[in-house]
Amino acid sequence: MQYSTIVIGDELLIGQVTDTNSGWIARHLSPLGWEAKSVKVIADDADEIFRAIDEAFAVTDVVLMTGGLGPTKDDITKATLCRYFGGEMVLNEDVKRNVEAQFERRGIPMNRLTASQAMVPSSCRVIQNDVGTAPIMWFERDGKVLVSMPGVPHETQIMMERSVIPQLVKHFHSDLDIEYRTFVVVDYAESALAEKLETYEQQLPAYIHLAYLPNQGVIRLRLTGAHHDPQVIAANMEQQSKKLHKILGKSIIADGDKPLAMIVGERLRELGLTISTAESCTGGNVAHVITEIAGSSDYFMGSVVSYSNDVKERVLGVDKTTLDTCGAVSQSVVEQMACGVSNLCRTQCAVATSGVAGPGGGTPDKPVGTVWMAAKVGDIVVSQCHHLPGDRKQIIARATNQVLIMLLKLILK
Amino acid sequence: MQYSTIVIGDELLIGQVTDTNSGWIARHLSPLGWEAKSVKVIADDADEIFRAIDEAFAVTDVVLMTGGLGPTKDDITKATLCRYFGGEMVLNEDVKRNVEAQFERRGIPMNRLTASQAMVPSSCRVIQNDVGTAPIMWFERDGKVLVSMPGVPHETQIMMERSVIPQLVKHFHSDLDIEYRTFVVVDYAESALAEKLETYEQQLPAYIHLAYLPNQGVIRLRLTGAHHDPQVIAANMEQQSKKLHKILGKSIIADGDKPLAMIVGERLRELGLTISTAESCTGGNVAHVITEIAGSSDYFMGSVVSYSNDVKERVLGVDKTTLDTCGAVSQSVVEQMACGVSNLCRTQCAVATSGVAGPGGGTPDKPVGTVWMAAKVGDIVVSQCHHLPGDRKQIIARATNQVLIMLLKLILK
Repeated sequence: MQYSTIVIGDELLIGQVTDTNSGWIARHLSPLGWEAKSVKVIADDADEIFRAIDEAFAVTDVVLMTGGLGPTKDDITKATLCRYFGGEMVLNEDVKRNVEAQFERRGIPMNRLTASQAMVPSSCRVIQNDVGTAPIMWFERDGKVLVSMPGVPHETQIMMERSVIPQLVKHFHSDLDIEYRTFVVVDYAESALAEKLETYEQQLPAYIHLAYLPNQGVIRLRLTGAHHDPQVIAANMEQQSKKLHKILGKSIIADGDKPLAMIVGERLRELGLTISTAESCTGGNVAHVITEIAGSSDYFMGSVVSYSNDVKERVLGVDKTTLDTCGAVSQSVVEQMACGVSNLCRTQCAVATSGVAGPGGGTPDKPVGTVWMAAKVGDIVVSQCHHLPGDRKQIIARATNQVLIMLLKLILK
Repeated sequence: MQYSTIVIGDELLIGQVTDTNSGWIARHLSPLGWEAKSVKVIADDADEIFRAIDEAFAVTDVVLMTGGLGPTKDDITKATLCRYFGGEMVLNEDVKRNVEAQFERRGIPMNRLTASQAMVPSSCRVIQNDVGTAPIMWFERDGKVLVSMPGVPHETQIMMERSVIPQLVKHFHSDLDIEYRTFVVVDYAESALAEKLETYEQQLPAYIHLAYLPNQGVIRLRLTGAHHDPQVIAANMEQQSKKLHKILGKSIIADGDKPLAMIVGERLRELGLTISTAESCTGGNVAHVITEIAGSSDYFMGSVVSYSNDVKERVLGVDKTTLDTCGAVSQSVVEQMACGVSNLCRTQCAVATSGVAGPGGGTPDKPVGTVWMAAKVGDIVVSQCHHLPGDRKQIIARATNQVLIMLLKLILK
């Protein structure tokens, strides 16, 4: 089944907010064999909404729409949907009760703007929003379906899982069996990996497709198989996955589309090990990505962000002479940081970073992008110097990935 | 001037990577009076690219395109552009030299796939990519312009600023004077703010528009004025900005579209104060957002992420009896964390968080979303308990914003 996504919101078009709903929807529909044909981001504007629906229905039978339903701007979206699908705006008592109940639960008085959320086009079937006040609206015409959902990501996410996805799957029946396999690959630039896999790609059957998804120093490889016979898919995807593992060996650090921090977490849990981080240039981002994973408190004990040399010395116990002689961005300092934080937080494992994230602070010897990093597991401490491209944010993101990869190389089988 | 953005990439459509290029482009073109009409994300597919260009040119005279130019997939995009604008694929010697020079600089051998990047449609004018191997291509037809740029964000960003934006501005002349003013507002939910500003909105002249941009507990208000007489715009925008300040008072914590961490940083620098963070549920994210700001090492000294109670006690000096009696998510603990980290890192200011980010760990007393936070400036320590909505990531993001707002309330005039 193919679908189009329409994302409504001035704030997205002017770049003040980044759309994450369309990606979330794709990640949750693709395992069911649903393929996103396009995502269109448009303004809170009736003509644009009308045009976008026309364009989307010309290509796909399903349109998923998010946004344009906040209390300050839902008039346009709802009126346009009413014009497109017919009928008139009516008060929906169920929505009204839901809005009232939500406000009561939060203990705040309902205002007039929020009350207007209970008005919906008579041509839609309402799916009650359990976690917000904007109703979800299901429209049908000539065998085509449009579902309008709120822009607030957690509302759309919870309600898609709870109601919209099950109802879509029930409504449509796809006869093509689709299987995805993703592999997390390190050690290669995209072009080098493509060259390495050229012969492999050529021998793939026509119904299996290989995609390269590079992101901040890590490449995700995705095999997609689509065939009407599920047994053909199952057997061939398994065979092609094994071939890929044989070619790339330990450069595949995980099967499945997982964040590095999740791969680290799963392995630490398996081994019964704990971890801490000592961060200078990454400024807490390594701890942040580790703790974004639910359940990370089982293995993550703590972190010291030592931006000043004073904190490096006093809290982490980095030797003052080393700091003076080698500078903060050096092999000795970063190794001492890793040892210091593992002592302080009493963990078996630790990672540490010290580098120049820029835009200032670069020198001819250590230009912006120079990052020393260390990983410690038990008594083993390894360190590397990386020269990372990009701006401040990208250098922080890449250094975070690289130090987690260093650690993974030590703890993976 | 209005433009459309087309973003090409399978990885974006399946949700494995989030498009940030279109937002960056909008943020950098809107101050010049250029308005994004739509953003369309499509697959690396010739038909889709063709259709998207047709749709975009039907509405706007300028199309900015990013992606589809990596060494493993640029064939499709370039061949499609060649088909759309005519001509044939030719070897561009300048691009070839550029690719060779880039590889030489990085000290890695050029492979065949990368060499193919020097092939471009004869119908385009090439803008040399100084920071990558994919050429930027400028096409013109019937007064319309399409610029194809790489998908790698930092390449597109650097080259847009350096070459593409100046050439676009030179090529087109806009006669409408446009001015934007953004205000960062706290203390209000979106619907409450809209009610507060209802009369204000009604009295705005037709050529000034107010937009609400809520994000994780902070609302950005944006006034857009568009008029052919720059003096009318200047005078009225100033007057309406003053009115807004008068209505909202200290709930406007900054003029301009700045991240909270930048507002904090600017004020700390003004006051000559330093800061540290002690984080439990935010897991290093407060330190991360503070250190994403260039120059933050001037005022940010360090951070302790104390996920385990052991680290809270030993490193931050939180009293064991308090931890046992009140629990880690409590007013006393979070205040002690703030004091502890400011002593440890020798800073005048500190913020601290301790809460239940979920999905596990909630209790009837302290459900998921309960976050205690403290801010310390000199001898003053304040603390608050928040009940934040959303999933783990959102609770972390909201708690990060709220604790920075708490601090700002103490240090802003």
